[in-house]
Amino acid sequence: MGAGKGMDKWILMTTARAPTNIAVIKYWGKRDETLILPLNENISVTLDLDHLSATTTVAEISLSGGRFQTCLREIRYRGEDFKDEKKGICIKKEDWQTLHVHIASFNNFPTAAGLASSAAGFACLVYSLAKLMNLKENCSQLSAIARQGSGSACRSLYGGFVKWTMGNELNGSDSLAVQLVDETHWDDIVIIIAVVSSRQKDTSSTSGMRDSVESSALLQYRAKTIVPKRMIQMDKAIKTRDFASFAKLTCADSNQFHAVCLDTVPPIFYLNNTSHRIINFMERWNHNEGTPQVAYTFDAGPNAVMLAPNRKVGALLLQRLLFYFPPPSGTEPTSYILGDTSLLEEAGVQTVKDIEALPPPLESKDSVSLQRYPGDVSYFICTKPGRGPMILPGDQSLLHPETGLPK
Amino acid sequence: MGAGKGMDKWILMTTARAPTNIAVIKYWGKRDETLILPLNENISVTLDLDHLSATTTVAEISLSGGRFQTCLREIRYRGEDFKDEKKGICIKKEDWQTLHVHIASFNNFPTAAGLASSAAGFACLVYSLAKLMNLKENCSQLSAIARQGSGSACRSLYGGFVKWTMGNELNGSDSLAVQLVDETHWDDIVIIIAVVSSRQKDTSSTSGMRDSVESSALLQYRAKTIVPKRMIQMDKAIKTRDFASFAKLTCADSNQFHAVCLDTVPPIFYLNNTSHRIINFMERWNHNEGTPQVAYTFDAGPNAVMLAPNRKVGALLLQRLLFYFPPPSGTEPTSYILGDTSLLEEAGVQTVKDIEALPPPLESKDSVSLQRYPGDVSYFICTKPGRGPMILPGDQSLLHPETGLPK
Repeated sequence: MGAGKGMDKWILMTTARAPTNIAVIKYWGKRDETLILPLNENISVTLDLDHLSATTTVAEISLSGGRFQTCLREIRYRGEDFKDEKKGICIKKEDWQTLHVHIASFNNFPTAAGLASSAAGFACLVYSLAKLMNLKENCSQLSAIARQGSGSACRSLYGGFVKWTMGNELNGSDSLAVQLVDETHWDDIVIIIAVVSSRQKDTSSTSGMRDSVESSALLQYRAKTIVPKRMIQMDKAIKTRDFASFAKLTCADSNQFHAVCLDTVPPIFYLNNTSHRIINFMERWNHNEGTPQVAYTFDAGPNAVMLAPNRKVGALLLQRLLFYFPPPSGTEPTSYILGDTSLLEEAGVQTVKDIEALPPPLESKDSVSLQRYPGDVSYFICTKPGRGPMILPGDQSLLHPETGLPK
Repeated sequence: MGAGKGMDKWILMTTARAPTNIAVIKYWGKRDETLILPLNENISVTLDLDHLSATTTVAEISLSGGRFQTCLREIRYRGEDFKDEKKGICIKKEDWQTLHVHIASFNNFPTAAGLASSAAGFACLVYSLAKLMNLKENCSQLSAIARQGSGSACRSLYGGFVKWTMGNELNGSDSLAVQLVDETHWDDIVIIIAVVSSRQKDTSSTSGMRDSVESSALLQYRAKTIVPKRMIQMDKAIKTRDFASFAKLTCADSNQFHAVCLDTVPPIFYLNNTSHRIINFMERWNHNEGTPQVAYTFDAGPNAVMLAPNRKVGALLLQRLLFYFPPPSGTEPTSYILGDTSLLEEAGVQTVKDIEALPPPLESKDSVSLQRYPGDVSYFICTKPGRGPMILPGDQSLLHPETGLPK
């Protein structure tokens, strides 16, 4: 992010990287559309920066987006004096209002895949702007600004497991992210994302949420009566690393969120036949083992996010997923399994032949339906819980240090 | 249905036909599993006997089914004296307990298609047994017996629009069907059923319902708080023939039932991608016209039941369905559109070429997605609301009048 002023020779720049996150107690429904205040509290896990993050510096971006403007205004308003005597830069608090901002940003994962790219993007924008303008606010306070860009962005200001609190203030200032535990607390969790092939255009979450708030009686009941109880249970499950409780709550809450979407007028469908199959396969596995091996959760799209308690179970999960959803012929494992590909070794899968030779999962052996579905999943991303946003060194800036234009 | 006794020469027989029905306020969840008492009241429309009915006379049937035994016991217990002096038959009340019953039954529609075949079947069984054994009970009282065979069967004892009342008695005797209006009250309604191709095995409604009652908090809320209000609104919409209100309530209640299925642990999926598409197409049409043209509802499977207010709109509906879901190549319209095929003429569709030449619906013209989905629907059935069960003349018996064995 660069700030240049008229005839001056300097450009001040900050580059940051922020992670995406996935909710395990879902956010669906706003009680205030402009301030983006949630109808219910919710909890997410932050995903590893290396695999799913936004990096932000500069570009000649159109500044017309209402939500972008909100974030920029809120940060500028809180800007502090800045002095760098070596470079001869001296900026007064009030100068931030008039300085021009250049912004460049990219995601290291497909934006179109429906993986909460706006969460990472707005978190990164707010975080980098705040560092540029020397804000004193902590991450929790910054999260209340990011929230106004995209609701779930507030949770990407922290690593580990993060709670978005309801807040009481009319202006929304106390509806912000709180870190429940950091990324080291439960660090053996393995996460696999199935990016599901889809022909259907998804309903945007902003308009879908609005329709649900207006028309679903079940959503009101969920927000008022069910979620408060689940928040307490989920908080406890996370703090005690109780994977069985965590998995049951995560799956139930994902399914209830999609139930509310169906109860909306007109109904919203995010899950497709492939999503249904993934759920059925995971439920059958969990049922067969007697205790949950895997948790699954789906956001506003057909992609599955699956969590296993450790690498051993993670490898078993990957084997199952590759058995049911092998790559289409001609696709190499290396372009079909992305992210932390070391899990492939533990799953004993290196080549296309290894995938073809995978035995049916035990829980499917007594079943007639041993059908495999090549092509129904576009690719998998293997990852894990991760840290919050970070500042990158100057040489990783996306903008040229002298012109302030994209490199 | 035949009753033969040891060495006697006579066989007494009754043949009946009973319709199936489709709920417009859904029944999902029992408060008593054995008596089959519903968690909420519900309303159905009875479908035309000519297109979707069960016909029952005789066969060497295994009498081991628990629910079948319940119905038989309840009817026998209420049997009355019977005398036919011409044939020399004289049966005392108590004789019904020991007489042997032969039963034969068939449906005039595919049982596997998931079109509530058990509703028509049990209604027909109870109705024909009651006539055979000369019961004094009226249809409403008989419905409480049919209910113990299959919950929704109670509603097939009447034509037109039928309400299944909750009842207060512990023994379930007042949880029975009441006719809201008969089939002549709203007789211009056209019904089209899309039998959707499906690879997936459906969850049985009995076990699905049980899982929902045990695990879905949304179901409890729906049954206690939402359905009572909808029952009043639906009753009014039906009595005043207010199609717009009827359609909104019918669609919302179908979607909420499927939402509750999704909220179940493990989740239940009855709707597939084709069901989703049908809903989206119907919603788009209704939205585009500004007022509902069509109501849709889905039971425990992917098949759509669509209702239009009159033949004119019914023809427009059929055009749309055939545009989006043309028969696979080589299939003639006559084997693709079943039931009351006279609607085809009004839709201007007689040949495969007519279907191919159908213009895109107006509401789809501005959309990029003019895709058609041949093969996604197995066939359509055109029908209308119909009458309750009827007794058929002796020559239509399914059993031989002298041997009592299947013809």
